[in-house]
Amino acid sequence: MNSISRLFQPASVAVIGASDDPGKLTSRPIAYLRKHGFEGRIYPVNPRYDTVAGLPCYADVASLPGVPDVAIVLVGANRVTDVVRQLAEAGTGAAIVLASGFGEAGEEGQRRQRELKDAAGPMRILGPNTIGLVNLTDGITLSASGALEMEGLRTGSIALVSQSGGILGSLLSRAAARGVGFSKLVATGNEADLDVSDIIDHLLDDDATSVVAVYLEGLRKPDRFREVAARAAGLGKPIVVFKVGRSESGARSAVSHTGALAGADAIYEALFKQVGIIRAETFAELLDIPVALSAKRVLKGRRVAVVTSTGGAGSLVADSCGMAGFDTPAPDESTAERLRALDLRDAALDRNPIDVTLAGLRPDLFRNIIKILFESPSFDAVIVIVGSSGVGQPDLVARPVLDSLSGSDKPLLVYVSPEAPGIVSHLNGQGVPTFTAPESCATALSAMHRAGSRMGAGDTAGPSSLTSGSGQQAGDLPSGPLNEIESKRLFAGFGIPVAHETAVSTPEEAQSAAQRMEGNIVLKVLSRDIAHKTEVGGVMVNIKPDDVADRCRAMDVTVKAATTANVEGFLVQEMVTGGVELILGFHRDPQLGPAILLGLGGITTELFKDTAIRLPPLGKRDAQAMIDEIKSSQLLKGFRGRPRGDLDALVSAILAFSDMIVVLGDRLVEAEINPLFVLPEGRGVCAADGLVVLS
Amino acid sequence: MNSISRLFQPASVAVIGASDDPGKLTSRPIAYLRKHGFEGRIYPVNPRYDTVAGLPCYADVASLPGVPDVAIVLVGANRVTDVVRQLAEAGTGAAIVLASGFGEAGEEGQRRQRELKDAAGPMRILGPNTIGLVNLTDGITLSASGALEMEGLRTGSIALVSQSGGILGSLLSRAAARGVGFSKLVATGNEADLDVSDIIDHLLDDDATSVVAVYLEGLRKPDRFREVAARAAGLGKPIVVFKVGRSESGARSAVSHTGALAGADAIYEALFKQVGIIRAETFAELLDIPVALSAKRVLKGRRVAVVTSTGGAGSLVADSCGMAGFDTPAPDESTAERLRALDLRDAALDRNPIDVTLAGLRPDLFRNIIKILFESPSFDAVIVIVGSSGVGQPDLVARPVLDSLSGSDKPLLVYVSPEAPGIVSHLNGQGVPTFTAPESCATALSAMHRAGSRMGAGDTAGPSSLTSGSGQQAGDLPSGPLNEIESKRLFAGFGIPVAHETAVSTPEEAQSAAQRMEGNIVLKVLSRDIAHKTEVGGVMVNIKPDDVADRCRAMDVTVKAATTANVEGFLVQEMVTGGVELILGFHRDPQLGPAILLGLGGITTELFKDTAIRLPPLGKRDAQAMIDEIKSSQLLKGFRGRPRGDLDALVSAILAFSDMIVVLGDRLVEAEINPLFVLPEGRGVCAADGLVVLS
Repeated sequence: MNSISRLFQPASVAVIGASDDPGKLTSRPIAYLRKHGFEGRIYPVNPRYDTVAGLPCYADVASLPGVPDVAIVLVGANRVTDVVRQLAEAGTGAAIVLASGFGEAGEEGQRRQRELKDAAGPMRILGPNTIGLVNLTDGITLSASGALEMEGLRTGSIALVSQSGGILGSLLSRAAARGVGFSKLVATGNEADLDVSDIIDHLLDDDATSVVAVYLEGLRKPDRFREVAARAAGLGKPIVVFKVGRSESGARSAVSHTGALAGADAIYEALFKQVGIIRAETFAELLDIPVALSAKRVLKGRRVAVVTSTGGAGSLVADSCGMAGFDTPAPDESTAERLRALDLRDAALDRNPIDVTLAGLRPDLFRNIIKILFESPSFDAVIVIVGSSGVGQPDLVARPVLDSLSGSDKPLLVYVSPEAPGIVSHLNGQGVPTFTAPESCATALSAMHRAGSRMGAGDTAGPSSLTSGSGQQAGDLPSGPLNEIESKRLFAGFGIPVAHETAVSTPEEAQSAAQRMEGNIVLKVLSRDIAHKTEVGGVMVNIKPDDVADRCRAMDVTVKAATTANVEGFLVQEMVTGGVELILGFHRDPQLGPAILLGLGGITTELFKDTAIRLPPLGKRDAQAMIDEIKSSQLLKGFRGRPRGDLDALVSAILAFSDMIVVLGDRLVEAEINPLFVLPEGRGVCAADGLVVLS
Repeated sequence: MNSISRLFQPASVAVIGASDDPGKLTSRPIAYLRKHGFEGRIYPVNPRYDTVAGLPCYADVASLPGVPDVAIVLVGANRVTDVVRQLAEAGTGAAIVLASGFGEAGEEGQRRQRELKDAAGPMRILGPNTIGLVNLTDGITLSASGALEMEGLRTGSIALVSQSGGILGSLLSRAAARGVGFSKLVATGNEADLDVSDIIDHLLDDDATSVVAVYLEGLRKPDRFREVAARAAGLGKPIVVFKVGRSESGARSAVSHTGALAGADAIYEALFKQVGIIRAETFAELLDIPVALSAKRVLKGRRVAVVTSTGGAGSLVADSCGMAGFDTPAPDESTAERLRALDLRDAALDRNPIDVTLAGLRPDLFRNIIKILFESPSFDAVIVIVGSSGVGQPDLVARPVLDSLSGSDKPLLVYVSPEAPGIVSHLNGQGVPTFTAPESCATALSAMHRAGSRMGAGDTAGPSSLTSGSGQQAGDLPSGPLNEIESKRLFAGFGIPVAHETAVSTPEEAQSAAQRMEGNIVLKVLSRDIAHKTEVGGVMVNIKPDDVADRCRAMDVTVKAATTANVEGFLVQEMVTGGVELILGFHRDPQLGPAILLGLGGITTELFKDTAIRLPPLGKRDAQAMIDEIKSSQLLKGFRGRPRGDLDALVSAILAFSDMIVVLGDRLVEAEINPLFVLPEGRGVCAADGLVVLS
C-alpha cells in the first residue's frame, strides 16, 4: 500500500491533540471515526489525558504503540511542524493538518509552510488548512468538521475534491438534500504536499468512484494535472471541474483564500478542453453533471423523448434540450402505433413531448410507455417529467421509473416540475439523475454526450515533430528582441515556411535585391526596437522593384520622424497574396505557463475575440481542434465558394511553433507570427511577419 | 369599474357547474373562495342541487338573483358556449373558462373557440383552458386547481402571469418553498379574449404589484404587448419575461440573407430589448429577478461589498458578480478604518470579499459591519453570505440582516451557501432577496441595474421621419420581385441615398453611360429573376469606361450560360469606395411581423452572426441602439485609427427603411440593402445594391 492508499484506507489513525471534552472541536475526529464504524486502531495523543473517549491516550508521538497509517493533526500552527517531523520519523503514512496560518497567511505563513513540507520528508501531507477527508465507501471519516457530521450522507460513486473546505461542506449539504451520495470527499486546503492532481490520480484507481468532481481555485502544478487528466481519459473516468476565479475580482479573493494564484480563465478553458475535462459552467452544474455521469449510461445520439403528464413543463424541458443542440423528434410510426395500442384517452402520442395526461398516474401504463420509448429506434434517451400530480403520490411516478431502469441501457432522466424535494431525493438515491431546473436536464445530456465521445483526448504526450537537430538552439541567440529577419529565421529553423526576403543596409541594395525577386515587393524597416512597424510608417506594400530605392529613402525619413529607435536597415520581401491571414502567438501565463493562440489576422480577431488557445506541447489533434474552434476557419474550408486553404500545412506550422516553445523553454519571452498566410490547398503556409523576444 | 377590474376584485362570483360533493373538483372553487376569506356573494349554479356548500344553488344563469362580476365556468367544452352567452346577456363582467378542447385541439377546437368569443360579446373571457386567477392581495381565489390550494402562500408584490397553468403551479410551489409571495396570479390559457398584455396592462395600475413576471409561450398581438411594455417603462414598473420556444427555428425566407439571420427567438429578443423587457434567461431567473426587483431598491453603480464568514463562498459569489461586470473593490481607507475599530480578530478587512470569520456569529458586530458597508462611499450594494455556522442558529445571521434594512436604501442581497431552506424562506419572506446559486446574486444585481436605467425605452410611438408625400406609394409598383434599379428607386423615394447608376439595354448604351460617369464603374446584369448576381457572373467591378461594351458582351454570355432567367439589360453604376459595408434588411416573422436587421456586410455577418434586430416603427434611439449593438460598428467609430463613419446618415437611413416598411405594409415581402456603404463622416451613406419583393 502506498502512502496515499494508507491515507484513504488506514488501519490505524492517530489523533494528535485529541480532547476528552465532547464540547471541544478536538474531540470530534474520534467521535466521527466511531460513529461511522471505523474498525481500525485509534491512538489519541495528548499529554493532558490518560484516556480519551475511553481509549488509552499517549503523551506524544514517540510513545505510540504502533505506526499509524494516518495522523490527524489538531494542534495550532506554531506546533504543527514539530509534530509532523515526529510523525514522519515514526513512519506515519500521511498527516492531515487542519491548522490555518500557513501559505494563505502572508510571507511568514509561507515560510512556515515550507518548513512543514521539509519536516514531513517522505510522509504525505493533506493540508494544512484543510477540513480533512471522508472515505464514505469504507465508512472512514478523517475530519473535525461539523459539515461532515450530518446524518443521511449517502454512499455513491461520485468523488468530490475541493480546494475549499467551506465549499466542500456546502456541496455536501446540498447533495444530501437531493439524495446524492459520494464515494470519497477530500478538501486539499493549502496543498503543501498532496494537491488535487495527486488525489484525482488516486481516485482514478478507486473502483468505488465512477466520476470525480473538483472545485478548483488554481493549479499549482499544471503539468501534473495534465498528466492525470490524460490518464483519466484513457481510463474513461470523467473529471468534472468548477473553476472559481474566472473574473478578475474573483481571482483577487482566491489569493486571499488559499494562496492560490488564479490565472487568466481563457488559459484554464484551453487546458480543460485539451485534456478532456468536463467543465461545470455554474456552481449547480458541479453536482448536476456528476449526478448524470454517475448513472453510467452512454448517450449514443441526440434524440430525446420527453414524456410528461403536464404540457407546460414538457415544453420547457424540450426547449432547454433544443437550445443545447438536442432533438425531440416525434415518435416514429411503429412507436406511435405501440403507444396508441395502450389506449390512452386524450394523450398526444404523435408528438414530442409525449403528453400522456392522466396515464401518468397509472403506474402500469406509465411503465409500458417508458418501455416503448426505450425500445424505440427514434430515441437515444428518455426524460420523464413529474408534475404536480406526482407530489401527493410520489410512488405512482417513482415506481414505474425505477422499474424501467433495468430494461434498457439508454439514459433516463427525471425533471420534477413542482417543489417536491422528497421525490428528487428518492429518485437520485436510487440512481436516477433527477433535476429541478430544465436547463440541468440539457446540461446533463450534454455532459453524457461529451463523456461518451471524449476518449482519445490527451494525445499530447510530447512534441510531435521534434527531432534531434531540428530547430536552432537558443544558445546561439542574443537576449532581448530579435529583429524581423532573425525572428523568421528562428521560425524557419523549426520548419515554419517564411516569406522569401533579404535584409539590406542601403536603398540601393534594397532596389537590387527587389529586382532579383519576381513581381512587386513589400518593403519594411528593419529594427529590433520597433514592434509595430506600420504605426511608424515602416511598411510599404506592392512596390515596383524599380521604385524601391526612392521609397526606401522616403521610409527612412518617415520612420526617423516618428521614432528615435535604432534603424538597422531594410527588409525586401516577396508579396504574399491569395491566402487567409492568421495570427499564431505565444503567451506565458503566470500560473499555467506557455500557451499558444491561433486567430484570424487583422481586425476580426480583436473585434470578435475569435481565437483558440492550447498549451504546448501540442499533438496533431490539438492543432486540428484549434483550427476547428475558430469560427473564421470556415474561410479555410471552402466557405461560400472560396478556395480551401492548406490545412495540413497549417497543422504542421502550429506543431512546429509548439516545438519551438518547448525547445526554447524559459528563454522565450514573446513570440508571434502575424500574419501567417494560409495559402490555397497544396501551396502551404507562409509567415510574412513576426517577432520574438528572448531572455 | 371596468370588466378587468371586476375580474380581479369581484363583489360576486357565480360558479357554473358547482358541485356539493367535496370529493369533486367542481366543489373546489367555492371551498377556495371561502377558505381564503372571500366576503362577496357566491352563486352556485347547478340544476342538480338546491344548495351547494350550504349556499342556495340556482338552476341556471337566468335564475341568478343578481349580476355576477365574475363567473367561473366549470362545465365541459360542449356546453361552455351556451353558458357564456347567457352570462354575457346577464351582464356578467368576465367569465373564467376552465375547459380544454378549444384552440389547442385542432380545427374543431379552433372553431369552437371562435364561437365562444362571439358568444361572449362585450363580456371578457379568461381562458379557455385556464386554471384561473388568484388575487392574493385581497384574498380572492378564482380557481379549481389544486396547485392554488397550498397553505403558506405568501402575499407579496410580484404578479405572475403565465400562458401555462402547469408552469404557474410549478412556480408557485417553488416560490412558496423559498418564502416568496405574490400579489396576483393569472393563467391566461388559450387567450380567446384576455391575453397576457391585457392582464399586464391591468397590473400596471395595481398598487399592490411592483413587478410583473410573465411566462410566455407566444404573443398573439405583438403590437398590443409593445404598447403595454411602453406604458410599463413610463411608469417604471418592470416586466420580467421567460419565453419558452427559443429553440424553434424561424421560417426561412427565399431570397434575402436577412431571413436566414433572423431566427424566431432573435425577433423576440429584439422586441424585448426594444421595449425594455427584462428577460429571464433561465427558468429559475423568472423567480430570482422579480424577487430582486420587488425589494424596490435602486442599484446606482457596479461596486459590491461581499461580506462573509466563509471564505470559499465569498470568492464564489464575488467571482460570479465579476463575470457579470460588477466590481468588488477593497474597502476605502476610511471604511477599513471603521471596520478595524470593531476589533475583529483574524478578520480580513482590507480586501473584498470581507471575511469577518467568527464575527459572523455575533449579531451586534455583524450589524455594525453591514452598517459600515452601507455607509461606505465605496459600495453600491452589499451581499451577505450565510455559511454553515448559520444553519444551526439562523437568527444570528438573519436578525442583523433584517435590522440593517432600514438603515440604507442600497440593495442588500443574501447568499446561503449550505442547504438551509429555513433561512432562505425566512429572509425572502421579510423582503431580503435571498439566493442559493451564486449566479443568482449576479443576475439579481444585473436586473436591478437594468431596471434602474431602463426608463426611456419605448420612444417608438410612430414613424419618425415620415411625412406626407415622402416615399413612393405601393400602388404604383408591380407585384413580384423588383429589379435592382426599381428596388433602389423605392429606397431613394424614402430618402435613402443610392449609388449613381443608369439602366441600359445594350452594350453600346452601357459604354456611353459609363463614359458620362467619373472614374471606373461597376457593371451588373439587370434582372428581377436573379437574386444573387455574383453567383451567375453578373457583377464586374472597377471597369474602365472604354472597356464597358466588351465586358457587357462577355457578361451576357456568362450569365446566359449560368441561368435561364430573363435578362432585362445592364446596370452601369458608380464605384463606391472608402466606406464600411453594412447590410440593412427586412424580415417578416410569422408571429411578430416585420423586423429590421442591421449587420456588417460580407462574410463577417454570416460567420459571427453579428447582427442587431428591431421591430418597426423605429425611433431614433432604436436605430442608435442597433448600431451600438453590433460589434463591427467599432469600425465606424474610429477603431484603430480608421476614419469615423457617418453615423448620423446611417441612423437616418435606418429610420427611412423603417418608414418604408410601415408605408408598404403587407405588400412588402422582402427587402434588403446589401451593401449599404457607410462613408466617412460628412459623406453620408450609399445603397449600392438591394432587392425588393412585393406581393
